[in-house]
Amino acid sequence: MKSFEANIKKVVPYTPGEQPQNKVIKLNTNENPYPPSKEVEKVLHNFDVDVLRLYPDPTIKELVDTIADYHGVDPEQVFAGVGSDEVLALSFLTFFHGKKPILFPKVTYSFYKVWADLYDIPYKCTELDENFVIEKEDFYEDNGGIIIPNPNAPTSLYMELSEIEDILKHNQDVVVIIDEAYIDYAKESALKLLDRYENLLVIRTFSKSRSMAGMRIGYGIGSKVLIKHLNNTKHSFNSYTLNAVSIQCGKASIEDDAYFKEMIARVIETREQVKIELKSLGFTVLDSSTNFLFVKHKEANAKKLFEALKAKDIYVRHWMDEPVSDYLRISIGTNEEMEKLIKFMKEYLN
Amino acid sequence: MKSFEANIKKVVPYTPGEQPQNKVIKLNTNENPYPPSKEVEKVLHNFDVDVLRLYPDPTIKELVDTIADYHGVDPEQVFAGVGSDEVLALSFLTFFHGKKPILFPKVTYSFYKVWADLYDIPYKCTELDENFVIEKEDFYEDNGGIIIPNPNAPTSLYMELSEIEDILKHNQDVVVIIDEAYIDYAKESALKLLDRYENLLVIRTFSKSRSMAGMRIGYGIGSKVLIKHLNNTKHSFNSYTLNAVSIQCGKASIEDDAYFKEMIARVIETREQVKIELKSLGFTVLDSSTNFLFVKHKEANAKKLFEALKAKDIYVRHWMDEPVSDYLRISIGTNEEMEKLIKFMKEYLN
Repeated sequence: MKSFEANIKKVVPYTPGEQPQNKVIKLNTNENPYPPSKEVEKVLHNFDVDVLRLYPDPTIKELVDTIADYHGVDPEQVFAGVGSDEVLALSFLTFFHGKKPILFPKVTYSFYKVWADLYDIPYKCTELDENFVIEKEDFYEDNGGIIIPNPNAPTSLYMELSEIEDILKHNQDVVVIIDEAYIDYAKESALKLLDRYENLLVIRTFSKSRSMAGMRIGYGIGSKVLIKHLNNTKHSFNSYTLNAVSIQCGKASIEDDAYFKEMIARVIETREQVKIELKSLGFTVLDSSTNFLFVKHKEANAKKLFEALKAKDIYVRHWMDEPVSDYLRISIGTNEEMEKLIKFMKEYLN
Repeated sequence: MKSFEANIKKVVPYTPGEQPQNKVIKLNTNENPYPPSKEVEKVLHNFDVDVLRLYPDPTIKELVDTIADYHGVDPEQVFAGVGSDEVLALSFLTFFHGKKPILFPKVTYSFYKVWADLYDIPYKCTELDENFVIEKEDFYEDNGGIIIPNPNAPTSLYMELSEIEDILKHNQDVVVIIDEAYIDYAKESALKLLDRYENLLVIRTFSKSRSMAGMRIGYGIGSKVLIKHLNNTKHSFNSYTLNAVSIQCGKASIEDDAYFKEMIARVIETREQVKIELKSLGFTVLDSSTNFLFVKHKEANAKKLFEALKAKDIYVRHWMDEPVSDYLRISIGTNEEMEKLIKFMKEYLN
């Protein structure tokens, strides 16, 4: 180690899914197989480039107002950032500043641990039951804050809102974050609990249901007091996060609600069809409320299957960690892509 | 305070210059009066919107390679982020992790204090001489790291590279950051010191000389070991920072070097002309190596002049803080805009 490295913070970063540059059937990072709204394209192709010489609005007002209007909340309850990852990263820094461990499920989005380590936040992971179900009682112990994704990833399982509310009832002195990256493919959102719990922050992304992973837009909705603190952190980090193009494109996406709902319905339809087919091939398929399936075959080894798929340019996700090493996470692609996947599975399993 | 606010980090955010929504002569945030390259417009207007459904490249390879090629360094020596503010914010978190105070000038970019407070980094500000000159000897004492903007803002003054090197010679056991937001309007860059000092990080932005403040692109260049640590932090914060559009537009800007150099020359020409005119009106004008002027009138009160200008829709920047409260910072606009400014000054001072 060089002498000047003594004062350098050393961290182990998060490893995102691969972004192969060649043409593959890409079912490994839960992206949307359909393009964004045509309204987004119009914004891009008619963008007044002269605007770029000026800083974007640091309050991101146009997008924040549009989001607030869409969800029927006050603009002061909305915070926007560079993907839900930035919203989460700044939320960890802001809301989990206590000495007690924060709580999150053992099997979940693996970035939570990375953020906790980045900011030296103590944490404790709650066990899941044998079916990967999050047990609400595990969140009743003393803690410094809570984060739960609903639906959870990579399990794809949805937790009933009544259970989320039970957790909130038991945790009114800490901030509770519900990470709703996949909620558009599931049942009810925790947004409807906002009126009753000022310590609740709900986080959303444009990367899945809005087909805009490449644009990096996420947002959080909570009480005005939470959003005020989060904005103070943001303005202590980077005054201007979302660029002028993202702000306009995000607004256009939200305004085209018919297309948004149609694309969600299409992904869900494919998901339900693929679920049936995989089950008929001997897979256990968890009851997904997301745009992906979490599956295990009764005989085939997950790692070998993952590699065989990759050799045929079909990318899915596999982790070596227990207790998920027997599983594959498969994003829902187009019907054509999923037919190719099923065709391969049939051949492989024979 | 609500009970759940106990674990919340409280910070006092940075206050950026105003971004008025109405049409004004905007000389308050050092933006470029000229649009970005036509090549940037082409990228935007021909952008394949389907790409947006996928995550952008987390390594930002295309832009990083272009920057590396432009500056004649290895791609592993380049780090890109959402404006130089994000690069700086992540650099503070990464490189200033010691217990000793970091050093920066007393009169400088006021965000440095905000980042230090955000991450609980101890700091000490060095005094400037009576002409706002940074004194290199002040940086010879024991410290946890150094950050110096060159040219400095809001003073507009350039520090000779030999003095920067003297500071580096005295500080080989800490990271030294040179913030070169305005270097394209000045003399030599500290980039040429990179070969000799592995602890040197040079930070640049697309917001000034590249007319792309609205796109949010900044970068850092340093030794491979520094960039590796900075990337580890970035990938522990947000895997995907720059969006797909920014990556392509940034690349296009760098590739159009002729336009870039022409716009720099034009701003410098206007700057030198305006400097002469302001001096003839009784202003002290510091010897600017930037795209702005730092000026004080021998009689007129700065705050009153600032307000009179604003009333006429001419926005400049003024701080109430000592020792700069007698000064105005005026960005260089188009010739037409600067003529209007001078015309107003003549009337006001009569």
